[in-house]
Amino acid sequence: MSIRTVDLNADLGEGFGAYRIGDDVALLDIVTSANVACGLHGGDPEIMHATMCMARERGVAVGAHPGFPDLWGFGRRVMPFSVGEIERLVAYQIGAAMAMAAYSRHRARYVKIHGALANMAEHDEGVASAIIAATRAVDASLSIVAIARSALERLARDGGVTVHSEIFADRGYAEDGHLLSRREPGALLHDPAVIADRVVRMVKAGAIETVSGRMLPTPIDTICVHGDSVDAVRVARKVRCVLEDAGIPLRSLH
Amino acid sequence: MSIRTVDLNADLGEGFGAYRIGDDVALLDIVTSANVACGLHGGDPEIMHATMCMARERGVAVGAHPGFPDLWGFGRRVMPFSVGEIERLVAYQIGAAMAMAAYSRHRARYVKIHGALANMAEHDEGVASAIIAATRAVDASLSIVAIARSALERLARDGGVTVHSEIFADRGYAEDGHLLSRREPGALLHDPAVIADRVVRMVKAGAIETVSGRMLPTPIDTICVHGDSVDAVRVARKVRCVLEDAGIPLRSLH
Amino acid sequence: MSIRTVDLNADLGEGFGAYRIGDDVALLDIVTSANVACGLHGGDPEIMHATMCMARERGVAVGAHPGFPDLWGFGRRVMPFSVGEIERLVAYQIGAAMAMAAYSRHRARYVKIHGALANMAEHDEGVASAIIAATRAVDASLSIVAIARSALERLARDGGVTVHSEIFADRGYAEDGHLLSRREPGALLHDPAVIADRVVRMVKAGAIETVSGRMLPTPIDTICVHGDSVDAVRVARKVRCVLEDAGIPLRSLH
Amino acid sequence: MSIRTVDLNADLGEGFGAYRIGDDVALLDIVTSANVACGLHGGDPEIMHATMCMARERGVAVGAHPGFPDLWGFGRRVMPFSVGEIERLVAYQIGAAMAMAAYSRHRARYVKIHGALANMAEHDEGVASAIIAATRAVDASLSIVAIARSALERLARDGGVTVHSEIFADRGYAEDGHLLSRREPGALLHDPAVIADRVVRMVKAGAIETVSGRMLPTPIDTICVHGDSVDAVRVARKVRCVLEDAGIPLRSLH
Repeated sequence: MSIRTVDLNADLGEGFGAYRIGDDVALLDIVTSANVACGLHGGDPEIMHATMCMARERGVAVGAHPGFPDLWGFGRRVMPFSVGEIERLVAYQIGAAMAMAAYSRHRARYVKIHGALANMAEHDEGVASAIIAATRAVDASLSIVAIARSALERLARDGGVTVHSEIFADRGYAEDGHLLSRREPGALLHDPAVIADRVVRMVKAGAIETVSGRMLPTPIDTICVHGDSVDAVRVARKVRCVLEDAGIPLRSLH
Repeated sequence: MSIRTVDLNADLGEGFGAYRIGDDVALLDIVTSANVACGLHGGDPEIMHATMCMARERGVAVGAHPGFPDLWGFGRRVMPFSVGEIERLVAYQIGAAMAMAAYSRHRARYVKIHGALANMAEHDEGVASAIIAATRAVDASLSIVAIARSALERLARDGGVTVHSEIFADRGYAEDGHLLSRREPGALLHDPAVIADRVVRMVKAGAIETVSGRMLPTPIDTICVHGDSVDAVRVARKVRCVLEDAGIPLRSLH
Repeated sequence: MSIRTVDLNADLGEGFGAYRIGDDVALLDIVTSANVACGLHGGDPEIMHATMCMARERGVAVGAHPGFPDLWGFGRRVMPFSVGEIERLVAYQIGAAMAMAAYSRHRARYVKIHGALANMAEHDEGVASAIIAATRAVDASLSIVAIARSALERLARDGGVTVHSEIFADRGYAEDGHLLSRREPGALLHDPAVIADRVVRMVKAGAIETVSGRMLPTPIDTICVHGDSVDAVRVARKVRCVLEDAGIPLRSLH
Repeated sequence: MSIRTVDLNADLGEGFGAYRIGDDVALLDIVTSANVACGLHGGDPEIMHATMCMARERGVAVGAHPGFPDLWGFGRRVMPFSVGEIERLVAYQIGAAMAMAAYSRHRARYVKIHGALANMAEHDEGVASAIIAATRAVDASLSIVAIARSALERLARDGGVTVHSEIFADRGYAEDGHLLSRREPGALLHDPAVIADRVVRMVKAGAIETVSGRMLPTPIDTICVHGDSVDAVRVARKVRCVLEDAGIPLRSLH
C-alpha cells in the first residue's frame, strides 16, 4: 500500500531591491517547496540567491516562478502579450532561475507560473501550451505545478510532462472544481483551523471540496500556502501541523 | 602545420521593444559569433530569440553578453554594484541566454561581458573573478571571451576555463597592449581599409599592434567588430573580406 | 474674412538613453508643434530637454505627450490600468513635461495623448474624461489635442477646455469619420504627394475625406505627421510644402 | 519676542505598486511636513496621490522628494549621472510632484532631495548648484530643505532661495557638524527617549549637538524622522511629544 504524501509550496523571494513581500525566512521553515520569483514581476538576482541558499540549507525544493514582466502590478494583471511572447518570457525566466539555482548549489526542479499568467493557464489552452513548450525547450526534465483541473494540468499530462496538481489552502472552490473568483463569497478562507482541516479532508479524500461541501475526486500533489497575507505564516504553520497530526507525510517536489 | 584561424564577433540583439541598435541582420551575414544581449543593458526575450534563430540558420555561434542592469545607460556606465552582486547579475544573465538559446534550438557556447563591466574586468581582479565564478557555477563547459592581456584573460586561464583572447578591430592600442582611452588620439580607427589591414597584420603576427607600430605577441582568437556605429557593417564586411583574401579562415567560437 | 491656418504636429523626443526613434532634428525644422514624450512610454529628462530647447530655438510649440508606462511596448499596447490610474498617470506626465519645458525656457501649451491611450480616448468616455480631469487639475490653461470626431474632442469641448481637432496625414478614414484599423486596406497612405494633396483638400474643405472620397465636415486645427516611419521626414516636408503652396499658413498650437 | 517653532518631516510614499516601505498613515498623524517620493527611486502616481490627499486632510505640508532613478537601490547608491543630468532629473521630478499635488488639491511647497543625492549635496557644490538651478527653473517660489551646514544650504541661501535647515533626529554628528558616516560608532541613535531629549536640546539651543556633547550654533528649521526603520513610528511620536511638552510649537514648511 502506497502512503499518500503531499507537498507544501509557497511563492517566495518576491521582493525587489529594498522592497520585501512576506516573511520568506519563516515560510522556508514550514514549506517543502519554494517557488522563486524570477525578476520580472518581483525578485532580483540577490533575493533569488538568498532564497535558494536558505531553501538548500533546509532541504526545501525550489522551482522557477515566472510571471508577467510587470513589477508595478506584481504580475497580477493580465498583460497584453501574445502567446508567442509569453512562451519566450517563460523560457527566459526559467533559464534565469535555473542559473541562480546552480549558482546557489541547488537545483530548480519545477516550474510554477505566477499570478495572472497562472490564472490564464487555468482555462486558456494557448497560454497553457506556451508554458509547456517553453518548459520543455529549456529543460525537458523540469516538471510543472498546475492548478488542479486546469488546462495546463491536462495539456502537460497529455504531452508527457510530469505534472504536480495543486490546490490552494485558503481559496474556495466552485461546484465545477475551479477557483471561485475573489469577488464571490467564500472565495477566501481566513481561519487557520478551518483552512487546515479542509486541507486534510481534501488530501485524505484525494478530492477538491467545493463551497457546498461536495468532493470532486482530483489528484492532489501539492498545497499552495500564500506568503503575502498578514496571517500567511500562521496559516502555513497550522496547515503543516494538522497534516502531520493526520499522519500525512510532507514531501517536496523532487 | 596548424592553420591559424580566427573568429569575428559582434554585439547583437541590443534593441529593446520597439527600439533598435545597429543592423543585426547585416552583421549576422558577416560575423562568425554573435554576443547576444541578455535583457539588462539591452535586449529582451523577443530579440534574443530572433537573433539566436538567425544565428543558427547562418551557422553563427552565440554567446551570452551580460552587462550592468542599466537600460538607460546601455551598460556603458560603471554602476554601483558590489563584486558579489556582479557575480549574481552575470549568473542570472548567462542562465537567461542559455535558456533562450535552447528555446531557439541553438546553444550558447561562451560568455562575453558588455560595456563598462567588460572594461572593469580588464584591470579589476575582483570583477574578473566574479565573472569567472558565475560562468563556472552556471555551466562549467562555457568558455569566456576576454580582452587580450586583461585580468579576466589571465585569471580565467589560470582557473582552467577556456579563454578566447579578443582584439578590437577599430580600437587603438597603447604601448602596454591595453586599449587607449576613447579620449586619446588614435583611440578610434575609422577607415575600413586601414582597420582591415591592421587586423590582418595582427592576426598573422599573433600580436597586438600599438599606436607606434610595435607588435606585442599575444594570442588572438577573436576580433570584435562593433555593431552600433554608422559604418559598422561596412567595416565588418571589409575586415572579413581582407582576412579571407589573406588566406585566414574564419571559424566561430565553438 | 478669417484666413484658415493649420498646425503641423509630430511626436518627438521618443528615444530613451542611447536609443532613438525617428529623426527629431529634421522634423523640428518642418513641424509647428512638437508633442514631447514624458518618460513613461519613451523619452527621458535628457531628450525632453534637448527636444524642447530645439523647439524653442525654432519657434516650435511644445506639448506634453503622455502615454502608458510601457517602455517595452512603446505605449502602443492597451495596458490594464483603471480609469483612475490613467488619470494619475496623465497628471504625473503633464507635470513632468511642464517642468522640463520651464527648465528649457519654453512652455508646454497643450496635452496630446500617445498611442493606445489616445486610441482608447477616441471612443471610451471614461478614459476621455480622465484625460480631461487630469489636464484641468494640473493646469487649467492647457489645451488638448484630440482626434477629430473623438469622445475626447466632444467631452473636452463640452467641458470648456480649448480643443485642437486633429487629423492624421497618412491614415485612411472610414465612412463614419473614424480612423480605419491598421489591418484594413487603405489604412496607411505611403505616397508623399498623395498624402499632401489629400491633406490640402481636407484643410481647405474643413472636412475629413473618407476612403470612398466622401467629405465629412469637421474642424481641423492640426495635422499629425508621424515621426517614426522611414519616410517620415519626406512625407512631413511634402505636406508642409504643399500646404504653403496652397496658401494655407502654418501656425503652431499657442 | 519671537517663539521658536520647528517642523517635523519624514520621507513618505516610497512604496511602488504592491510594495510598501514604512507606515505612511501613522507617520502622517505625527509629522508636519511630508517629503513625497517622485517615482524614480520609489513612489508612483498612485501612492503620490494617496499620500498627498492624506497630508492635505491632516494639514501636513508636502514637498517634492527627488532621488536618483534607481528603484532597485532605493536611491541610496551614488549613480553615474553628470551634474547636468542630475539637474534635469531633479527638474523632472519636481514637476511630477507639483502636478500630483495640484491634482490632489494640495500644493508642493518645497524640495527635499533623497538618499545618496542628498548626501552628495552636503559637500559637492556642483550637485548642490544643480539642485538649486532645477528648483528655481521649475518654480522660483519653492523652498529647499537642506542638511544643516551643507553646501546645498549655503549655496541656496547665497542664491536667494528660501532654505529650511534640517537636522536628523536619529543621526549622530561629528565635531565639524556633519553627519557621522553610518559605519562609525554613534552614527545611529535608537532609544526614543534619548533621541527626543537630544532633539529638544538642539532646537532650544539653536545648535547641533556633536557626539562629544559640543553645541555648534546652527539654524534649525526642521527635524527629519525616518520612516523606514522598525521603530520609526515610535521614535517620531516620542520626538513630537517631547517637543510639545517643552513648549516648542510644531509648524509645517509653508
